[in-house]
Amino acid sequence: MNDPGTLELRLDYRFRDQELLAQALTHRSLHRKHNERLEFLGDSVLGFVISDCLYRRFPRLPEGDLTRMRARLVKRDTLASVARALDLGGFLRLGDGTRKSGGCNRSAILSDTLEALLGAVYLDGGVDSAQAVVLKLFAPRLDNIETENIKDSKTRLQEMLQKLEKPLPIYKVVGQQGKAHEPVFRVQCRIDHADSPFFASGDSRRIAEQSAAALAVEALESGES
Amino acid sequence: MNDPGTLELRLDYRFRDQELLAQALTHRSLHRKHNERLEFLGDSVLGFVISDCLYRRFPRLPEGDLTRMRARLVKRDTLASVARALDLGGFLRLGDGTRKSGGCNRSAILSDTLEALLGAVYLDGGVDSAQAVVLKLFAPRLDNIETENIKDSKTRLQEMLQKLEKPLPIYKVVGQQGKAHEPVFRVQCRIDHADSPFFASGDSRRIAEQSAAALAVEALESGES
Repeated sequence: MNDPGTLELRLDYRFRDQELLAQALTHRSLHRKHNERLEFLGDSVLGFVISDCLYRRFPRLPEGDLTRMRARLVKRDTLASVARALDLGGFLRLGDGTRKSGGCNRSAILSDTLEALLGAVYLDGGVDSAQAVVLKLFAPRLDNIETENIKDSKTRLQEMLQKLEKPLPIYKVVGQQGKAHEPVFRVQCRIDHADSPFFASGDSRRIAEQSAAALAVEALESGES
Repeated sequence: MNDPGTLELRLDYRFRDQELLAQALTHRSLHRKHNERLEFLGDSVLGFVISDCLYRRFPRLPEGDLTRMRARLVKRDTLASVARALDLGGFLRLGDGTRKSGGCNRSAILSDTLEALLGAVYLDGGVDSAQAVVLKLFAPRLDNIETENIKDSKTRLQEMLQKLEKPLPIYKVVGQQGKAHEPVFRVQCRIDHADSPFFASGDSRRIAEQSAAALAVEALESGES
C-alpha cells in the first residue's frame, strides 16, 4: 500500500487526525474500523458542496439543469474516475479476498472510498476544507460541465446523434393541459434507435422539447439507448 | 398572506436579505422570481445537516441504519409535516390558479418551499445558521427517531404486525455465498399480507434478518404493504 502522505499531497490537505485518514481508506472486508459510516457522511458533504458551487456558478440556470448537472457530477462513474485520477486504488486497505479479486479497481469500491475520504476531510477540517478539496478534485469536470451546458440539450442531442451517424430526433407535441394563461405542453422526442420515445412537459413547447432532449442525452450518455 | 416576520420568529432566524426570504416563499405559479433554484440548494443543505447530525448522535450505528434514518427524516411527508407545524402554507406566494386549487395545503408545494427556505437561510447566514434552523425544526423528530431506533428492526416489525393484528413474520435463510471466512447470508422475511417477501444479505444471519425486517418496516410505514 502506498504512503497516505502522498495522497494528502494530491488532495492538498494534511490530516490532523491520521487515524481518520486511515479509516477512510479501510474497506469493510478488512474487518477493522472501516469507512462505511464516513461514506454516508461524505456523500452528503459532496452533494452539498457541488450544489452550492453549481448554484453560484450558474445564476441563470433553472433548477432542472442544476439537478441534471449535479447528478452527472456525483454519479458512481464520475466518482470512480476522480478516484482513479488520484490513484486511490493504491492507497486502499482491503481484505485479502477482496484484494485478490481486484477490489482496488472496482468502481463501486473506488467511488465509496472517495466519498469516505471527503467525509473524513470534513470531520477533520470542517466545511471549508471539504469544499476546497472537492473543488480541487472536481475542477476539470466543473469547467467541462460549463462548456457542455453552454450548448442546449437539443443541440447536444443532435451532435451526439450525428457522431453516431444516426438520424436526427423527431419532436412532437402530444398534449396540452392547464388553463389558457398557464398552459403546460407535453412533448415527445423520438430517436431512431431507442426502444421508446422520451416525454417531457414544460411551460412552453421550447422548454418541453429541451427537457425531452435532455432525457435522451442522459440515456445516450449512460448507454441505455 | 401572513407577515413573513412571524415566520422568522418561528425559525428563530432573522434574514439580512428580506428579498431572499420573499423569493423562498414564491411558487413558480406566480411567474416572478420563484423558489425552485433555492429548493435545489436547500435540498442538499438539509441532507448535509441531517447526515452530520445523525453521524455524530449515533456513533455506533452502521451506515445502513443512518441511511434509513436520513431517508425517513428528509422524505416529502416528513418535510410537509414540518412545514405544516410552521404553518408555512399561510406564508406562501402562489399564482391565483394554484391558490384556488388548494396549493397552500399540497404536500409537494409545502415540502419544496421548506427546502427553499433552508436554502435561503444558508445563503443569507451560512452553514451555521442553516444548521441551527434545521436542528430547531427537526428536534422533535430527531429525538423520536432515537427512540425508534433503540428498538431493532425485528422488534419494530413484530410490534407493528401485532398492532395490525397480523401473524408474525417468518425468516428463512435462502442462500449462503462467499468464502468460508467471509460468508454472506441471504435471508427472506415473509409477512402474511405482503405480496412478496423481503430479501436482504449480511455478514451474519442476524444482520441479514435485521436488514430484511427493516425493509418490511419501511414498506409498512410507507403503506406499500
